[in-house]
Amino acid sequence: MNLEWLGYLAAVLTTLAFVPQAVKTIRSRDTSGISLGMYVVFIVGIVCWFCYGIVLGSWPMILANAVTFVLAAVILVLKLRHG
Amino acid sequence: MNLEWLGYLAAVLTTLAFVPQAVKTIRSRDTSGISLGMYVVFIVGIVCWFCYGIVLGSWPMILANAVTFVLAAVILVLKLRHG
Repeated sequence: MNLEWLGYLAAVLTTLAFVPQAVKTIRSRDTSGISLGMYVVFIVGIVCWFCYGIVLGSWPMILANAVTFVLAAVILVLKLRHG
Repeated sequence: MNLEWLGYLAAVLTTLAFVPQAVKTIRSRDTSGISLGMYVVFIVGIVCWFCYGIVLGSWPMILANAVTFVLAAVILVLKLRHG
């Protein structure tokens, strides 16, 4: 049984999960409960995943982490701006 | 050049990133800026990654996603409790 779809589903879900957080943070500017440390460490990790995807030549990893990077970076910028 | 360490570094960083968020949320109970949708979708995605890790027999994937699941679940429970 080919279960590759499970990996793609996982990648899509953990990427798209940041959409509602980014939308909420853009709209509300309510960043007091968001951890600066989380987004700093997470973004460094996503850059590592992106580079690892390039090493492996894996387009799903490259694309998913590029999208996650943009979404997490938006949240980080708003956190830095609004505290 | 073996760049497997880049994948492990990425996995450790994107897992540990949730530690400061969980600690902050446990201490402050400040969940108003945290997106419920993000943590629901994210946890479903992490369960998919965990199962995909089992399919692949990848212990790093299984362990990293087990830790992330616990941390994200703590944040989700606090979000559900404190709104």
